[in-house]
Amino acid sequence: MGRRVVIIGGGAAGASAAARARRLDPEAEITLLEKGPFISHAPCGIPYYVGGVVKDAQELAIYTPEEFARERRINVKINTEVFDIDVKNQVVLAREGGSVVKYQWDVLVIATGAKPIVPPVEGNELNGILTLRLPHEAPRLREEVERASTVAVVGGGYIGLEMAEALRNLGKKVLLFEMMPHVLPTTFDEDMAKLVHEELVRNGVELHLNEKVVGFRGVNGHVNKVVTEKGEYTVDKVVLGVGVRPDTELAEKAGLRLGETKAVWVNEYMETSVPNIYAAGDVAETWNLITGKRTYVALAPAANKMGQVAGANAVKGRFLKFPGVLGTAITKVFNLYVARTGLTERQAREEGFKPISATIKARTTAHYYPGGVQVTIKMIADESSGRVLGVQIVGPDKIVAGYIDIAAALIGKGATIDDVFFADLSYAPPTAPVWHPLITAARVLSKGKY
Amino acid sequence: MGRRVVIIGGGAAGASAAARARRLDPEAEITLLEKGPFISHAPCGIPYYVGGVVKDAQELAIYTPEEFARERRINVKINTEVFDIDVKNQVVLAREGGSVVKYQWDVLVIATGAKPIVPPVEGNELNGILTLRLPHEAPRLREEVERASTVAVVGGGYIGLEMAEALRNLGKKVLLFEMMPHVLPTTFDEDMAKLVHEELVRNGVELHLNEKVVGFRGVNGHVNKVVTEKGEYTVDKVVLGVGVRPDTELAEKAGLRLGETKAVWVNEYMETSVPNIYAAGDVAETWNLITGKRTYVALAPAANKMGQVAGANAVKGRFLKFPGVLGTAITKVFNLYVARTGLTERQAREEGFKPISATIKARTTAHYYPGGVQVTIKMIADESSGRVLGVQIVGPDKIVAGYIDIAAALIGKGATIDDVFFADLSYAPPTAPVWHPLITAARVLSKGKY
Repeated sequence: MGRRVVIIGGGAAGASAAARARRLDPEAEITLLEKGPFISHAPCGIPYYVGGVVKDAQELAIYTPEEFARERRINVKINTEVFDIDVKNQVVLAREGGSVVKYQWDVLVIATGAKPIVPPVEGNELNGILTLRLPHEAPRLREEVERASTVAVVGGGYIGLEMAEALRNLGKKVLLFEMMPHVLPTTFDEDMAKLVHEELVRNGVELHLNEKVVGFRGVNGHVNKVVTEKGEYTVDKVVLGVGVRPDTELAEKAGLRLGETKAVWVNEYMETSVPNIYAAGDVAETWNLITGKRTYVALAPAANKMGQVAGANAVKGRFLKFPGVLGTAITKVFNLYVARTGLTERQAREEGFKPISATIKARTTAHYYPGGVQVTIKMIADESSGRVLGVQIVGPDKIVAGYIDIAAALIGKGATIDDVFFADLSYAPPTAPVWHPLITAARVLSKGKY
Repeated sequence: MGRRVVIIGGGAAGASAAARARRLDPEAEITLLEKGPFISHAPCGIPYYVGGVVKDAQELAIYTPEEFARERRINVKINTEVFDIDVKNQVVLAREGGSVVKYQWDVLVIATGAKPIVPPVEGNELNGILTLRLPHEAPRLREEVERASTVAVVGGGYIGLEMAEALRNLGKKVLLFEMMPHVLPTTFDEDMAKLVHEELVRNGVELHLNEKVVGFRGVNGHVNKVVTEKGEYTVDKVVLGVGVRPDTELAEKAGLRLGETKAVWVNEYMETSVPNIYAAGDVAETWNLITGKRTYVALAPAANKMGQVAGANAVKGRFLKFPGVLGTAITKVFNLYVARTGLTERQAREEGFKPISATIKARTTAHYYPGGVQVTIKMIADESSGRVLGVQIVGPDKIVAGYIDIAAALIGKGATIDDVFFADLSYAPPTAPVWHPLITAARVLSKGKY
């Protein structure tokens, strides 16, 4: 009999772990336990379903449970909620329909993901206060907001901004509340976030910055008012986008150590503090490639890779190492693409660097070639070493994704301003100016060296 | 009196050298000698003028000579052709209008660029056989081809392909001759070039591969036939796109050493074999970042950077070093973007690596997000070290430029397959699949490790 691998959670990390374990160990008995009806899911697509870009919520998952089970010979159990991990006896207990089922494991992978944060304020239990988590909940979410005329979005992070766009696409009046002075407060510097503010306002979003939500009021158990430090606003629905926290309930019950970020502590092999138990994805913490410090990012690409590492190591021992993250991320806000990697200028200062920065505007094609647009790039470097620490880019063209990934590739390999200047990037009049916008940013940042 | 810096050639490298020297030495007397009427020119834009995308040939230059002279306090001499360098007396001799003018130099930068290769075949002197070199010649080129109904393009390199597209845009019948079995013979592998063949044929280009042009025939001194090993073709004009060679005539006369590539030998400071003489741009050789071997690439981004290094060092001594190139390049062939960096699989083998490669097709957005297209990526690595040696990408979306530059950034920093897999690239449903296409290529290349 093969090694018994049990994976709790069928999202990005769990499905990746299962697939990888199967690929590396044809003999293993692999069981994937998922509490919802979908696997290989991620919340990233939900705003596009709500906004009408994606028609069928089932499309948001990459595989159906049946395909995944058949093609990879994995025992997939959907609608199966694990409620306890018995570490001593190497068993998990799950509710399936009306009954409790036990799964014996030799190796366990915890991939329970993250939960939307619900602010601990008065009225937060009212109906009509909505969160995004799982794709199968998306149709209900859409139904709820479709009936509304005014919707409050609380929180100006990626999900908040994407939901604001989705709701405007549905013709709703949208009030966006952010308690910090700018949207994307933890991932962007204020100067760059201001470009996003303009785009939001241009597209009819009523923007409330520096305005903390302190409560909700309702009628008949349904929300009808958002209360902030500054006033009260009548709304029909509220969408929460104030971030997520790792869903560590099971892990804590099983006695696993949490890290300083409150996510499950793991080492680079995705091993937890308990032998034979791995954790991966949004439930686990990771570390920043620049600072080496522990960090928590709930982003699908990292979850997938952590899942690969956990799945590989579950069957092969210490076979793969996860190197860490830069927190590279992108979102589309109406017509703007908004992307970042590494440290913001503020973070760099907080981390003890002496940051210098340059912000430039550059065209995406040769000056004479039609169709080019202007993008804004902020590049941050450490003054003493010249090491590039972070980049933020905002512009109305999908090429922003390419640019941020070039920056992430360079920063991930420890590039300095010199390295960016000399990076051998491509040029043709229809695709770039002869001085690539990132190279232009590096030139300005070099203070006259280039 | 400041140091006298004389720069021969006002193209990309020469103009960059002049600008950089001025920036780093406010006292220097800087003279830029250009034989044509434009400065900061490059031939890259000519096909877009010929094809009608760009309306005014003057737009192809970045600065007018007057702006450049005024804003940077540079003595710009257009229509001034240097015909001799007197090394002993540190003087160059130039023809300006009817007279000969001498320019004294303390430091000299040679940036005479490259010349189109004219195949040494019978009839190559006939009228109607056209080459691309300088933007101010573009209007004449366009006039010539406008009168034609059938045009032969000889050579399937970047310029040949771009001219084929331009000519089709003008409604011409186009015959493209390539002596090798595939287009882009020195920069792409055959499997990837085949995708370009399909696009050419789909757009009405009559493709003649494996067919060497052995001569031209004419009537009244004007070409009217292309003669190949396989037959004769009646045409009205011929456009040569068989490559360029460094314009080393002046450098050789001055006794400068040429390198093994027949371009002017330079070290990483852009110093030539003669003290106080620098060379930069398409006249100079460079070296490959992967193999360390001398190479010749006539590409504008490298020319600009070599110019920067030469200009800086001309006034500051050994201030900047040019690290070398990967030969990153992109071209647009009708609706396809065609890009490459590093070594092809064939080159990798010739260089003594044991290359492995993977070719994948991937979508440019999440599977459920509309507007995504399919791109084809070939990734080549060294089997023993895992080092990525080269990438080729073909697809109908400008994001191909972003992808090739990510690859170039990674390869330039010595990335392995592992590094590509773990590169923290961005993801959002409108901008990428959750497994970035380059990461998918690295996974396939890892042969099951990922």
